[in-house]
Amino acid sequence: MTQAVRHDSMRARNLGVVLGEIRRNGPVTRAALAEITGLTKTTVSKMVGDLIEAGMVAESGALRDGERGRPGTAVVLSGRRVAALGLEINVDYLSACVVDLTLAVRLRYSQAVDNRAAPPVETLSHLAELAHRAVDEARREGLAIAGSTLAVPGLVDGGLVHTAPNLGWHHVRVSDLLDLPVEVDNEANLAALGELWFGSAPGDFLHVSGEIGIGAGLVVGGTLFRGARGLAGELGHVVVHPDGPACRCGGRGCLERYAGQEALLGACGLTGVPELLESLRAGEPGALEACERAGSALGIALTSAIHLMDPGTIVLGGVFAPLFPWIRDPVRQAMAARLTGMRHTVPDLTVSRLGSDAAPLGAAGQIIHRVLANPIATLTRRGENA
Amino acid sequence: MTQAVRHDSMRARNLGVVLGEIRRNGPVTRAALAEITGLTKTTVSKMVGDLIEAGMVAESGALRDGERGRPGTAVVLSGRRVAALGLEINVDYLSACVVDLTLAVRLRYSQAVDNRAAPPVETLSHLAELAHRAVDEARREGLAIAGSTLAVPGLVDGGLVHTAPNLGWHHVRVSDLLDLPVEVDNEANLAALGELWFGSAPGDFLHVSGEIGIGAGLVVGGTLFRGARGLAGELGHVVVHPDGPACRCGGRGCLERYAGQEALLGACGLTGVPELLESLRAGEPGALEACERAGSALGIALTSAIHLMDPGTIVLGGVFAPLFPWIRDPVRQAMAARLTGMRHTVPDLTVSRLGSDAAPLGAAGQIIHRVLANPIATLTRRGENA
Repeated sequence: MTQAVRHDSMRARNLGVVLGEIRRNGPVTRAALAEITGLTKTTVSKMVGDLIEAGMVAESGALRDGERGRPGTAVVLSGRRVAALGLEINVDYLSACVVDLTLAVRLRYSQAVDNRAAPPVETLSHLAELAHRAVDEARREGLAIAGSTLAVPGLVDGGLVHTAPNLGWHHVRVSDLLDLPVEVDNEANLAALGELWFGSAPGDFLHVSGEIGIGAGLVVGGTLFRGARGLAGELGHVVVHPDGPACRCGGRGCLERYAGQEALLGACGLTGVPELLESLRAGEPGALEACERAGSALGIALTSAIHLMDPGTIVLGGVFAPLFPWIRDPVRQAMAARLTGMRHTVPDLTVSRLGSDAAPLGAAGQIIHRVLANPIATLTRRGENA
Repeated sequence: MTQAVRHDSMRARNLGVVLGEIRRNGPVTRAALAEITGLTKTTVSKMVGDLIEAGMVAESGALRDGERGRPGTAVVLSGRRVAALGLEINVDYLSACVVDLTLAVRLRYSQAVDNRAAPPVETLSHLAELAHRAVDEARREGLAIAGSTLAVPGLVDGGLVHTAPNLGWHHVRVSDLLDLPVEVDNEANLAALGELWFGSAPGDFLHVSGEIGIGAGLVVGGTLFRGARGLAGELGHVVVHPDGPACRCGGRGCLERYAGQEALLGACGLTGVPELLESLRAGEPGALEACERAGSALGIALTSAIHLMDPGTIVLGGVFAPLFPWIRDPVRQAMAARLTGMRHTVPDLTVSRLGSDAAPLGAAGQIIHRVLANPIATLTRRGENA
């Protein structure tokens, strides 16, 4: 390592430390930052200057007489420039959102589309339109997109979607078909991260994404558990009944066949979630029974998940969020009947306030968290583009 | 923090670094250790001297002309003094083993006892006899026991066994009933660690402990996954059939009721694993069918576990190790039928070479790994006792 390279890598690390402290402690003066980080005031001032120029930090104008140094102009994290794009393709909708550096949600677009009927190239071209609309609107607000992540309900590896059975996708290389640079990740994983960063769940939970498919993301100690190859959390294919109906995955009696959106609607002869909610509010027995059965199956699959993964709490998201008042009791009953004999506590069952917004928010949040941890990459790219 | 305290904590950290490098690189000279660690030769020599005096390190006599410094007397990790005691209480046996600092297995005792018939205090008194016998024998060999861990087939929190349903234990405080200081941990977790440190599995696997109960331990990137409260891995209570036979845990149709040792023996009217193995070798249809059914149920539960936890490989241990030739195919078939449609690879299914020895070995190994990471505690305790 040459002296210059070593110096650059130290500067990169220190910039991340300074930005992290501004995020945690802001508004905070340069003098206080020097004291907290152990860096010289000159170094801190230079770095704060660079961060202000990059629009990541702003002077808050406030003076501070705090314990940590003399009064001075304080700085805070700024959301006025750097932002990230979160995207989602799900079976019956497309979403895009823009989140700024302070994790404030700046834009949110969602569009109902039946993506099962379309080839991947068509769905991706629809998505590109939505994404460009979001990026254009963000630019008009003075935001620069530092990166974007796409959430897909399937097994993902790099830019390749191995399989997304409910979309009918197999070996789709998204990076080749989309005209903007994106990372691709599993929808249920990103929804769990969305819940962690934008929701109200504590740092230990299993977030359940109920859509046409059912995925789950386990967060332990504030970190997403991904398994050996990043394929963990496929709750929808946990076996509820070994001789049950055949599933699109090739198995039988998977949870999805009992509690997935299609199974649920099919059981009461309805075609959409809004109609189902209406029927439930009207107390229609067919709809109530369908929720009872779906909740019971979900409780059985969650029992297996609790025995295997020991989550802190269970957060129901996706369409399970609006359905929560009707599925809560059957889920709880199925879990309690099977768990209380062995465990002295059954995990709490709560509802996500984000619903189906969790995945695109987590997708954008993942980019923002990376920028916060390593701001130099964004600073340098700005310099190159300038 | 006073200057003296800071100095002590630095010395503690550096001792761990030096011991770690001796373990990884030994035989290695003091000069090479100074170069690797960046510590002064005087500091390294003093620390190596302390470690030799504590019996943790020995001069290997070998001279080294390696790239890392001039020739000198090399040192290696030594197994002649420091050791750990691993203990296990399972439903039909008790075990004890002694492992030295080099992770060599020095003693291994096992005793068939039906612990269901006895109150916890009696079982623990039996265990204490076995443990004292092992400690006495270890002392005769010049070994000093640095600590001990007890493996129990149940849900454990500190020294308290919340419940071990197959032992009939509920809220048993082991620390109050055993006359030697032990840590208590879950049998399946310790068996997975035993497989990691003493077996042939790579760093990413799900180890299945087939005993009267069935537990599992997931290792990802060389680290045991414990869940939010340390209760993860209860594979035996994954639901195989929601309306199946009642289980001791309060649930229904748990894997244990199909593939636990009792269920397996009951299905072919035999009373012990040796008889079962004899019948299988003789090709008796009843025994073969019982294994087929058990393997099939195990494959269904593992399908759910793979979807949720995404393990690298599956290692079958405990009594599943000797039964492997007869359960391998039904397990593989059940997994392949359900997994291949969705995943491009199904995890490999392998067999543990350790069988039921994995848990006590992991129990002792856990103590040794702690001593290696923080040798100062063992050095200090020696000093206090002297």
